[in-house]
Amino acid sequence: MKTLLTAVLLGFSTFAIAQNPIREYRQAHETRLLNEFVQLLSIPNVASDTSNIRKNADYLVAEMQKRGLKARLLEAANNKVPPVVYGEWMTPGATRTIIFYAHYDGQPTDPADWTGSKPWEPVLRSTSLEKGGKTISFPKDDEKIDPEWRLYGRSTSDDKAGVFAILTAFDALIAKDIKPTVNIKFFFEGEEEAGSSNLKEVLSKNKERLKADAFIVCDGPVHQSGRKQVVFGVRGDVNVDLTVYGAKRPLHSGHYGNWSPNPAMTLARLLASMKDASGNITVKGWADDVVPFGPVELKAIKEAPQYDDEIKKQLGITFTEGGGTSLLERINQPSLNINGFKSGDVGSLARNVIPTTATAVLDLRLVKGNDVARQIEKLRKHIESQGYYVIDRDPTDPERLQHPFIAKFTQREGGYNAQRTKMDLPISIAVINAVQAASVEPIVRMPSLGGSLPLSIIEETLQMPTITVPIANYDNNQHAENENIRIQNLWDGIEIFASLMTMKN
Amino acid sequence: MKTLLTAVLLGFSTFAIAQNPIREYRQAHETRLLNEFVQLLSIPNVASDTSNIRKNADYLVAEMQKRGLKARLLEAANNKVPPVVYGEWMTPGATRTIIFYAHYDGQPTDPADWTGSKPWEPVLRSTSLEKGGKTISFPKDDEKIDPEWRLYGRSTSDDKAGVFAILTAFDALIAKDIKPTVNIKFFFEGEEEAGSSNLKEVLSKNKERLKADAFIVCDGPVHQSGRKQVVFGVRGDVNVDLTVYGAKRPLHSGHYGNWSPNPAMTLARLLASMKDASGNITVKGWADDVVPFGPVELKAIKEAPQYDDEIKKQLGITFTEGGGTSLLERINQPSLNINGFKSGDVGSLARNVIPTTATAVLDLRLVKGNDVARQIEKLRKHIESQGYYVIDRDPTDPERLQHPFIAKFTQREGGYNAQRTKMDLPISIAVINAVQAASVEPIVRMPSLGGSLPLSIIEETLQMPTITVPIANYDNNQHAENENIRIQNLWDGIEIFASLMTMKN
Repeated sequence: MKTLLTAVLLGFSTFAIAQNPIREYRQAHETRLLNEFVQLLSIPNVASDTSNIRKNADYLVAEMQKRGLKARLLEAANNKVPPVVYGEWMTPGATRTIIFYAHYDGQPTDPADWTGSKPWEPVLRSTSLEKGGKTISFPKDDEKIDPEWRLYGRSTSDDKAGVFAILTAFDALIAKDIKPTVNIKFFFEGEEEAGSSNLKEVLSKNKERLKADAFIVCDGPVHQSGRKQVVFGVRGDVNVDLTVYGAKRPLHSGHYGNWSPNPAMTLARLLASMKDASGNITVKGWADDVVPFGPVELKAIKEAPQYDDEIKKQLGITFTEGGGTSLLERINQPSLNINGFKSGDVGSLARNVIPTTATAVLDLRLVKGNDVARQIEKLRKHIESQGYYVIDRDPTDPERLQHPFIAKFTQREGGYNAQRTKMDLPISIAVINAVQAASVEPIVRMPSLGGSLPLSIIEETLQMPTITVPIANYDNNQHAENENIRIQNLWDGIEIFASLMTMKN
Repeated sequence: MKTLLTAVLLGFSTFAIAQNPIREYRQAHETRLLNEFVQLLSIPNVASDTSNIRKNADYLVAEMQKRGLKARLLEAANNKVPPVVYGEWMTPGATRTIIFYAHYDGQPTDPADWTGSKPWEPVLRSTSLEKGGKTISFPKDDEKIDPEWRLYGRSTSDDKAGVFAILTAFDALIAKDIKPTVNIKFFFEGEEEAGSSNLKEVLSKNKERLKADAFIVCDGPVHQSGRKQVVFGVRGDVNVDLTVYGAKRPLHSGHYGNWSPNPAMTLARLLASMKDASGNITVKGWADDVVPFGPVELKAIKEAPQYDDEIKKQLGITFTEGGGTSLLERINQPSLNINGFKSGDVGSLARNVIPTTATAVLDLRLVKGNDVARQIEKLRKHIESQGYYVIDRDPTDPERLQHPFIAKFTQREGGYNAQRTKMDLPISIAVINAVQAASVEPIVRMPSLGGSLPLSIIEETLQMPTITVPIANYDNNQHAENENIRIQNLWDGIEIFASLMTMKN
């Protein structure tokens, strides 16, 4: 009652608390809904897995057709790449058209890394693995579903949860005979985790079809505090592969070690040169072109809950990079992260050998003002400043004998810049109000998320604002093994998107 | 003729050049010998592969029995570990007894890393892979074998070449009715590459049986110049596993990157702290206890060919660790080498994630004076000096919240100290003369090899000098993928061991 009172006093809609037909619909069909979601999750969905990713697309077309939507695949010229699954619902008299976006592909993963289950064979657990969650059977017809249960599997959160919440919100409205207030365009991408390389082409080819007032993206986690959030920007992202070289052939570490250069040590030194002991990036000019926040954004950040100490405790960390700067401040700066480092072998395959190469994959996040090409160039220059001859391929024999330090430095496909929508646009305010209406607690307005989506491509191509409404729990292990979603977050997602589909002006 | 003349003028035996019954024997049986060697190589021989390593031992027992030797397995108390294959040949009137050692196990390897062949399915190539060697068919009955051909497969060099050369030298002597001058004890170990964990026990249990004047080891490569060599010492060796920690669960690099610590970067910094930019080790006191060489050793080193520039060219390297110090000087210092480094994934499995751990396997080589326990302790102290809480297991949750930097630091089993035999002992001189007798060019006398063998264990347990006589080509890719032996080195090995079995006083 206290929360209800607070919500009423604060002037929030009580839609979420009192009579709620969307919740009634969900409560009446929980077992079926969960089963349907598991069915979707059981189709392997790595973008490069051409045959399976197509099965996902076909499945979603069938799902849309069941709902009476005109569904179609929007294909790139290269029809080997995952298509966009598209559907429309026109509302007579609607003045707004909203595109609802989610992506049905997931991050690649090594099944061997998962604990007690497989990526595409979802299992239900009593709570999170970290809290000792045990596998439980899927509920039968009328068994109760505990909202704290977790569903484990690839894309349970990122981002089939979005696909599922959007489609189910629409179902619930239709079932309860509630008219959407907007025209709805469903847009489900199939290669977001592979860098959205063909998204721009598909958007360009379908500009007419995709006319709308806003592009609402369901992806990423809610705030660490558990509060719902609306996000007005995302960081840009680009990946780099970096390889350094030792001798041309693997050498016995006894006969040549500490004379012939060890590439693992060479790369360790090179990477260590990119940050200082506090974790601040030392690459020259890294943040020089960053556009600072305005007063609306600064206010929103100030009002966002500060959960750093709680998160540190949960993650089991004491030191943070950035000399004590808060997480919120850090994710609004350009970043440099090592995704992976490999040289030789560890564990039972380790041998007394000097590896021939060492390779790292780096992830650069960009904020408003940064530019992919400029950021890449700054890093390349830094590597050169460390004495390296930088090329985009393996060195030739003459190059090896000419340059003591050689780095192969290549940008991965699919990099893109950051995106930010102004928080005081009418559509921004309408979205904030709609999400707030589906939430008891005050929602968080976030000028930018730490994560990335190719929203700059959308904005630039379609000339419309994008706003992100995430639904996943923040501890969903997104992009890693043991990805999961908390059932209550899935249920809340349905209510949030139903509220957005019935947004007021 | 020029070489013959030089040899005669220098006073070397012309045994190797003129009439040579051992060579005649080999030349008459080359195809059969090669086939027999391939048969031995085809039995997988990783020490931990219990069933296959036993097959190797049984095969060698049968081979010894064929030769009329009393063959037996010397087992450790734990009979799951690889046994020593042992055989004896007593020479009436012999005043010396020599143990001939080689090991029949090989380094673990990932078959996927091999180029065009598999570790235990040997193939013949026209020359080395690096020089563009092509696969060629094994020769039929009377086809000529080119001595520059290479045989590729695990343990072709390290160290089944030793087993094969020793047994075949003995065959040749018997076939040509040449009496050995010494009692021969064949001693083939089966877990050298796994750290010889049970060797000491087996030696201790068989002290009486193993009474001898010297322990001659066939392992390692000949000098880089291609000259034969006799080696009077080896470095000690010990491996360390080192793991550092990030957050308890894998994190999205966008949402947490550059705030939550990245263990790959943490480990890169820690490793980088262990050497300076010239590649000199910065761990305090690393070489403080080294026993310097005496005049005989220094003379031998001075007379050894200097091949650094040639090797650098062959390896495709310009920079060497140690600020220009020669390879020979470097391998006579204690070393620190990274065998492997892994954190997260690279290549197609790379994801935008902050890994939870980063792991390196380090290889520490020790020289005379160093001690395994002391060297390990110096490294542990160095890690502590970098601000780490050092433990030998994963941290607990309270430890994580108490210590900003935590390292799991564990010594692998099987570490041992360096060994050196004085170069002016009568047996040392007899061995030098015997190997020189089988060689046209002046041989290299090496006070210590860069590589390691558990010879200190042998010396301490059996109280006898050990001397190493390697036969493999130095570019044999020992311990790595694409291990190979040059056929001529195999043939020379037979002559060298026949010469040793008929050594003069």
